[in-house]
Amino acid sequence: MSTHPFDAAVALNATGENCWQGRTSPDYANFIGPYGGIIAAQALNAVMLHPQRLGEPIAFTVNFAAAIADGTFEARARPARTNRSTQHWIVELLQDGQAVTTATVMTAIRRDTWNGDEAAMPAAPPAPEVTPPQHPARVAWVKRYDMRFIDGGVPYPWDGQDQGHSRTALWVRDNPPRALDFPSLTAMADIFFPRVWLRRGKPSVVGTVTMTVYFHADGAQLQAAGTGYLLGQAQGQGFRNGYFDHAGHLWSESGVLLATTHQLVYFKE
Amino acid sequence: MSTHPFDAAVALNATGENCWQGRTSPDYANFIGPYGGIIAAQALNAVMLHPQRLGEPIAFTVNFAAAIADGTFEARARPARTNRSTQHWIVELLQDGQAVTTATVMTAIRRDTWNGDEAAMPAAPPAPEVTPPQHPARVAWVKRYDMRFIDGGVPYPWDGQDQGHSRTALWVRDNPPRALDFPSLTAMADIFFPRVWLRRGKPSVVGTVTMTVYFHADGAQLQAAGTGYLLGQAQGQGFRNGYFDHAGHLWSESGVLLATTHQLVYFKE
Repeated sequence: MSTHPFDAAVALNATGENCWQGRTSPDYANFIGPYGGIIAAQALNAVMLHPQRLGEPIAFTVNFAAAIADGTFEARARPARTNRSTQHWIVELLQDGQAVTTATVMTAIRRDTWNGDEAAMPAAPPAPEVTPPQHPARVAWVKRYDMRFIDGGVPYPWDGQDQGHSRTALWVRDNPPRALDFPSLTAMADIFFPRVWLRRGKPSVVGTVTMTVYFHADGAQLQAAGTGYLLGQAQGQGFRNGYFDHAGHLWSESGVLLATTHQLVYFKE
Repeated sequence: MSTHPFDAAVALNATGENCWQGRTSPDYANFIGPYGGIIAAQALNAVMLHPQRLGEPIAFTVNFAAAIADGTFEARARPARTNRSTQHWIVELLQDGQAVTTATVMTAIRRDTWNGDEAAMPAAPPAPEVTPPQHPARVAWVKRYDMRFIDGGVPYPWDGQDQGHSRTALWVRDNPPRALDFPSLTAMADIFFPRVWLRRGKPSVVGTVTMTVYFHADGAQLQAAGTGYLLGQAQGQGFRNGYFDHAGHLWSESGVLLATTHQLVYFKE
């Protein structure tokens, strides 16, 4: 039995057909409620554990509908449509009978085809040569990731200057290291600190409201990535009237594009 | 009463609480079933028409779960969570009681904040100076859009060469022109022909399986875009084992980023 905090955090106990109970983990606490990535992984895990699941995840969208209070939550996952080689899921996490998270998941049985990725991993020094941030983590979940910023780290001290861009590249893996799987890759898709902080050189109240992950890697390619670092890159696209989005990519240490991801984030001012 | 084919295509008749009936439109027929963009617009419209809707769409994900047969379908839209200024919706389109499409929609009341888009519109000659494709449309929906390819048009004749990239830029608007709104912008987010056709210089069996749209523009900015052309740009990211994704952007004729969009597409070989 794994004792890795990630496995404990995403664990779900079956309570009925299409129903599970989960629990927030103090190991992945954020400023308010859990790290979004761990909520995403919990929502995906309801599908991963479902006895009717067909194939592996290929697309995942999670909507963070309300703050999750510390404690237990109910997870509901139902197959809305099952085809011969694809399946579509609707997932909800609830507290007090109210949805706090909604998600859709598509799973599929994949087969060999022509391959030809266009999103190339940027040049980067090897992870061990990049120094981790020296300032102490202010929230628990940050300690659960070994992050090494290649470019566009958190701008300490805050200088309040518009940097003109919000592009970050970093090496990241679980801390302690853990073999990559679909839930942990999903969690790491949310690793990028808010682009508006980087762009403006100052912190502000933010919260991701929705995130989508497309899985280019299958289970075998995740297994090949093992406990190695991932290279993550993200950049903001539009910042307007309280919301901004970013586009992100995650490659394995050896340069295989594992996932592409996008999210929309609320910002207060 | 509008007689524009788009309005007829996305029309829904209320049949009960959270329930509508819609109908496929021959004006937007694709090779098999309707154009994905029109299905997306129909799913969004169930939220637009809902009496409990709060604010305007800011994020939308649609999953094309199964082929839609010509004829009627049921649309179900329910608010899964309503907050003070945001709302989360779950939508399903059904035929014969089976889900053919699932979607999630986030709506919000937006307010003025710092703005600073990073995704800049590429340079392009004015739309009237760009010649529309001369080959006849093989499916109905293509006739419903005035498309003028600036770069990366459909490669006729097919040369079977790997072009090394799959980037397209085009001007697009409804044909005949129609004032932009959230459903029509959503439909145009699916305007990009399959990236794998462009990349490989040959046609293949494809089908979008999921699409996400983030709306950077509010209703006033859509109104300002009016009946002008939009500039759309898209590029594939990963092509592997039967699925590829692309990242896309839509700007107004005057250069305002209206939406960012991503989709995952099945391809046969």
